[in-house]
Amino acid sequence: MRILVLGGDGYLGWPTALHLSRRGHEVGVVDNFVRRQYDFEMGVDSLVPIAHLQRRVRTWEEVSGLAVEAFVGDLTDHRFVEKVLDRFGPEAVVHFAEQRSAPYSMIDRAHATYTQVNNVVGTLNLLYAIAERDPAVHLVKLGTMGEYGTPNIDIEEGFIEITHKGRTDVLPYPKQPGSFYHLSKVHDSHNIQFACRIWGLRATDLNQGVVYGQETDETTMHPDLATRFDYDGVFGTVLNRFCVQAVVGHPLTVYGRGGQTRGMLDIRDTLACVELALLHPPAEGEFRVFNQFTESFSVRQMAELVADAYPGRVTIEHVADPRVEKEEHYYRAAHTKLLDLGLVPHLLGPATLRSILAVVDRHRDRVDPGAIAPTVQWRATESTLATSSGLPRR
Amino acid sequence: MRILVLGGDGYLGWPTALHLSRRGHEVGVVDNFVRRQYDFEMGVDSLVPIAHLQRRVRTWEEVSGLAVEAFVGDLTDHRFVEKVLDRFGPEAVVHFAEQRSAPYSMIDRAHATYTQVNNVVGTLNLLYAIAERDPAVHLVKLGTMGEYGTPNIDIEEGFIEITHKGRTDVLPYPKQPGSFYHLSKVHDSHNIQFACRIWGLRATDLNQGVVYGQETDETTMHPDLATRFDYDGVFGTVLNRFCVQAVVGHPLTVYGRGGQTRGMLDIRDTLACVELALLHPPAEGEFRVFNQFTESFSVRQMAELVADAYPGRVTIEHVADPRVEKEEHYYRAAHTKLLDLGLVPHLLGPATLRSILAVVDRHRDRVDPGAIAPTVQWRATESTLATSSGLPRR
Repeated sequence: MRILVLGGDGYLGWPTALHLSRRGHEVGVVDNFVRRQYDFEMGVDSLVPIAHLQRRVRTWEEVSGLAVEAFVGDLTDHRFVEKVLDRFGPEAVVHFAEQRSAPYSMIDRAHATYTQVNNVVGTLNLLYAIAERDPAVHLVKLGTMGEYGTPNIDIEEGFIEITHKGRTDVLPYPKQPGSFYHLSKVHDSHNIQFACRIWGLRATDLNQGVVYGQETDETTMHPDLATRFDYDGVFGTVLNRFCVQAVVGHPLTVYGRGGQTRGMLDIRDTLACVELALLHPPAEGEFRVFNQFTESFSVRQMAELVADAYPGRVTIEHVADPRVEKEEHYYRAAHTKLLDLGLVPHLLGPATLRSILAVVDRHRDRVDPGAIAPTVQWRATESTLATSSGLPRR
Repeated sequence: MRILVLGGDGYLGWPTALHLSRRGHEVGVVDNFVRRQYDFEMGVDSLVPIAHLQRRVRTWEEVSGLAVEAFVGDLTDHRFVEKVLDRFGPEAVVHFAEQRSAPYSMIDRAHATYTQVNNVVGTLNLLYAIAERDPAVHLVKLGTMGEYGTPNIDIEEGFIEITHKGRTDVLPYPKQPGSFYHLSKVHDSHNIQFACRIWGLRATDLNQGVVYGQETDETTMHPDLATRFDYDGVFGTVLNRFCVQAVVGHPLTVYGRGGQTRGMLDIRDTLACVELALLHPPAEGEFRVFNQFTESFSVRQMAELVADAYPGRVTIEHVADPRVEKEEHYYRAAHTKLLDLGLVPHLLGPATLRSILAVVDRHRDRVDPGAIAPTVQWRATESTLATSSGLPRR
């Protein structure tokens, strides 16, 4: 299958591209390197050093004998999107190319607006370009479990059957997103569903949980193929951050009471889920939603898992929650559709935790402890980033 | 009360500003005149001639002795928004300032993107500016009944209690918007609800039905105070368009089978509803939704009402529906909250229809019959506007 991976230089985009390439697909990657640009803005770096995309692609060809074509440009530039689709002629497009950090979107007005415009316009350009060229192209779009928020009823996969005043319908599951970033994903989901309805496009919205881990079968084949690992207060996700805190002897910082429960998955399962979605495309005009996670944990539980797995001494500290969210809540979310397609999950056990801790340990000298604390406050309209230089943001 | 009316030069913004001014409020209007710009793009004009905003304001002062302050600028320019809030110091903001035509948003990619960016960014700038200055300012935002689409269950006012697998929660009503414009309103609603949650803002989302009529108690005081009346295929709404077709002897064009049912209201009720919302503000942090319409009619019924009210001969013609929508469907939507606040509706009777027909008759020489037919096709990614000049759009 000819597959274009948008955001193919990122944490998940790059390993997904390699995985699909190794599985025999013809893969192109598209990126504008804005994720690397955010690092400059924040004064932080990926814990694991990452090579330039051009070198990654060269090394992959040397190591595997497989070619991956790279396209450099921005999805908000519709001519670029159109040109890439014309040149590559994909059968499927995997769309990771969005600003994906909730705290980043909450820094201030400019970052909120940037996040929504970037994500929504990029996706609109893609929808139009696909509709104009070949509506049969399967769009696999990365959404997030955070679109649902934490309702007091079970979360279903995208849609819910509602019986109300004696009548019944199946409707889009109500959304209660918790940041301007999560809101941008909700906007995308609505736009994509509509495009499927009016133009007969085929799309899969992967409402992904929080991903942990860094190594995949392909990225470990050569140091140049490593994917990034973020632990900072803006882009670092919770489990990876806890592993860094354990290794550098920093207390594991749990936001608030830590009863916040989230769907989680191993980075290797992201790759498997994307491929399963690609191999089983939806029907013409179908907009389908898969909840892409394998297990749920509360933040408190995750901290305890990491503390138990780490051989040294680890303390857990509760800090004021910078977000506006329920710190204790009901959480039960369906996630059977990908299992039905054959997903065999990597569950979160001590072995996986030890392998993440080992990655961190190898690069412990690169950790900037000043970058870990959360500095973006949801309740404020403007926050200052904790940069390692201590310089104000602008 | 000090009230800022955004989009105060438009079809509903202008009469709302006058109504609030006459009712004793201190009123400022904000506009960037982009609605008048769309007329140039489309080669059409308001059926009723409208004066420049500056002249409207002068005449209003002469006629009523009341001052309305005008601010000219664009909400997507955040500095302008901030400056206006600083200068005027409103207690409430009524936000009409969005691209409000579904067909306009469906012309092509550029118009879809423009509509979503314009509407979403303008509202984001406003939310930040209010939160930074005075979170107690009440935002009254114009939404649309079209956010809900046509579910097969009753539509509630913004929220619905759902019992699912033995648990119950009150959640945002699921949205199924029918154009990139309607989608932009759904995006806004989600953003506003979130801003109320994190910053304690107070907002009322008025999910308005289709408005008909042109004359209000204030606009009829002087010809300079008239508001616009659109009948073209892009900005003309259904009942006003039928009245024009009846007067010029054109068949009333019903899209498809005409079973499309919509909530409707008289322009005078828009004014009353906005004031009722203003006089009864929500609590701190509350995001509330009122369904702002008074009666429901199918398109077929509306055509019959106009045909019956018009003294001359009228024929009804069914044309292929340019939209992607259900042509027959269940429709029952709650609309009690504004009635509970004291709304006394102007229902659609022969007298109202005759008064609209009389307005049209007075300006029948200004009708361009070539502008009435729908030319924007939902199923196409690009449509050409029917301009009176016959020139291509670009």
